[in-house]
Amino acid sequence: MKYWLEKIEGGITAVPGVEAAGVHCGLKKNGEKDFALLYCPQPAVAAGVFTSNRFKAPPLKVTENHIENLVRAVVINSGNANACTGLRGENDALATAGETAARLALAKEEVLVASTGVIGSYLPLEKMFAGIREAVEALSDQGGSDAAQAIMTTDTISKQVAYRFQVEGGGSFVIGGMAKGSGMICPDMATMLAFLVTDAGIEKTSLQKALQECVNYSFNAITVDGDTSTNDMVLLLSTGSGNLDITEGSMFWEPFKEALMQVCSELAYMIVADGEGTTKVLRLTIKGAVDYKSGKKLAYSVLNSPLVKTAFFGEDANWGRIVTALGYSNVDFDPEKVDISLGHVQVAARGEAVAFDELEAKAALMKAEIPIEINMHMGTEEITFWGSDLSYEYISINGAYRS
Amino acid sequence: MKYWLEKIEGGITAVPGVEAAGVHCGLKKNGEKDFALLYCPQPAVAAGVFTSNRFKAPPLKVTENHIENLVRAVVINSGNANACTGLRGENDALATAGETAARLALAKEEVLVASTGVIGSYLPLEKMFAGIREAVEALSDQGGSDAAQAIMTTDTISKQVAYRFQVEGGGSFVIGGMAKGSGMICPDMATMLAFLVTDAGIEKTSLQKALQECVNYSFNAITVDGDTSTNDMVLLLSTGSGNLDITEGSMFWEPFKEALMQVCSELAYMIVADGEGTTKVLRLTIKGAVDYKSGKKLAYSVLNSPLVKTAFFGEDANWGRIVTALGYSNVDFDPEKVDISLGHVQVAARGEAVAFDELEAKAALMKAEIPIEINMHMGTEEITFWGSDLSYEYISINGAYRS
Repeated sequence: MKYWLEKIEGGITAVPGVEAAGVHCGLKKNGEKDFALLYCPQPAVAAGVFTSNRFKAPPLKVTENHIENLVRAVVINSGNANACTGLRGENDALATAGETAARLALAKEEVLVASTGVIGSYLPLEKMFAGIREAVEALSDQGGSDAAQAIMTTDTISKQVAYRFQVEGGGSFVIGGMAKGSGMICPDMATMLAFLVTDAGIEKTSLQKALQECVNYSFNAITVDGDTSTNDMVLLLSTGSGNLDITEGSMFWEPFKEALMQVCSELAYMIVADGEGTTKVLRLTIKGAVDYKSGKKLAYSVLNSPLVKTAFFGEDANWGRIVTALGYSNVDFDPEKVDISLGHVQVAARGEAVAFDELEAKAALMKAEIPIEINMHMGTEEITFWGSDLSYEYISINGAYRS
Repeated sequence: MKYWLEKIEGGITAVPGVEAAGVHCGLKKNGEKDFALLYCPQPAVAAGVFTSNRFKAPPLKVTENHIENLVRAVVINSGNANACTGLRGENDALATAGETAARLALAKEEVLVASTGVIGSYLPLEKMFAGIREAVEALSDQGGSDAAQAIMTTDTISKQVAYRFQVEGGGSFVIGGMAKGSGMICPDMATMLAFLVTDAGIEKTSLQKALQECVNYSFNAITVDGDTSTNDMVLLLSTGSGNLDITEGSMFWEPFKEALMQVCSELAYMIVADGEGTTKVLRLTIKGAVDYKSGKKLAYSVLNSPLVKTAFFGEDANWGRIVTALGYSNVDFDPEKVDISLGHVQVAARGEAVAFDELEAKAALMKAEIPIEINMHMGTEEITFWGSDLSYEYISINGAYRS
């Protein structure tokens, strides 16, 4: 049987039947869109992955409860994270779900909520309710781009992607998604906000399993600043309106996961590339790790080191900082086995300096995306992680974000 | 009995009989001092605390062996860390000890070695040997300042301190020390290089115990960038030439540790205050932690967060970032118990926002040293940690350090 994956336009609204809107309700002072609504005409099965931060924001608690049901709508605001707001924050999140449900003639348990922005401020409910009214009016099967814009905070570009999986002469499904970065990015469970929709028919357990697997190697394999947010969440809704059914182990299970992985990877990559102050994307492949967990610890130790990040910003082949970061990662390994390459240039072999051509290294470091390969020679696990450099711009963005 | 602690001039050479030198032997391109020698006329008992980084530099291996003996000299170079240099690096460190011993008519096992600077380059032995010859010539009981200058890398000021402990009408001892920062500062076991000398008579086990205790609450309670170096070490030499003998539990054991703690704290503070790009020192007191280990994890999660650091640089009371960093620290706690104050201004109570005067908060944040207090209400441990903000200058220093 012949089948293929094809990139298409439209983001989340590329999925047949799905409607979305993005409007301005007054949470952002600059007048930009700050309120998004996603609507499924049929009840959708939903899967979610949520932040591991101990300060879990109230909207996540509400969404974790509601996601047990079939879902009809997701409402998302930017400009205010509704985090560290206690019981009042939880009531505000519930009220948002309730008002949305009322306007769409749904039960409030069919509505998921998400927030992103400043921590520690209460949601201005009047503005939120105005946003709901306006967004319900604006719902459209062309609204994906507006919604993707409305969830941005310090993002400089909106992030959406969609793919159609097509079986020759047969069935098909679409997966569309949108995401936002771009600071506090070091997901552990889920990263920031990402919303994915598919029309493939798939039951809840398989959906959750596919999402968790894909998230581990996409959203959970990126870092901008090592900060894991209080509001991270990735949601995947399956409307089941398409003509292909998927279950774990069935014929299209692997192709479905590949398509989902493709969507997750592209969105995750966009988050890193648009990370606060990012001038270079670091593509770090850890080879020969003992397992996923230790490979990730090693990779994050390197990608979160401010010394490593500034060296890449300065296009300086300072591999000693990489070695140092591996060394304090708390992972057990033999320093006398470690090989490191930057681009095609090997800079360390068996934990020691090797002579290399500085000009050739410099050429590799001048590119916008820099491949780094580290072979630990301790096991067989190979995983790729994505990070960014640390620039003046990061300081400038974050020196005065709240005010 | 009456006794007191008095700050005195002279750094390590404030200790009677101790000689030191700092010279330029060609490791630094800019002609600044890069080679230091410390000499004890009598054999000294020595204690040491070393980096926990898996890539432990060869000089540390040599020093860990030699420190088992009575010690007569310490030789330190800056400009080259002799790290990731394998067997050749170890032989180079041994050769440095050997040549120093030959010039001073000692056994090479009586000489300790330390290096700091760029990782992954072999030591230029000819230059090192020239440095040894010149430093031996220059040895003087006034040489403490020269030595403190010679161990600097990106430090902008040299760091030394000395205290005399005086019993009224009776005995006394002196503790002198020098240290260097100022990047790759997130000690775990020992931080960077610090060299301490005392003339108090104290046997090896007590000396090591006192040093480890003091290091935990001084050098191991600071962080600039979360990077734990391959070359960190703190050495404490006791010449025993004074007229006070100390043993664990004896009359002056606690006063000795207090004096040592004073010296370690001041040097550690100088490292943070002169940290790369530091414009503000963050004094973070964690109260109500369960134990030292979890308190430190919480503190370092906050002090190493680039978002927290840039907020303080920007004088922005963005306490949500503090909460977030606590939340991803992997320490078990109840988010609904956490109180946070910046200066005298409480910004969060029981994990939630409290209304506070923004102008009053801003006033606290404009100071050069900012007290932060976090009460976890989980236990009784209280510890103070020191960190720094993250500024444009840090990027500028580290974007092109190696070249």
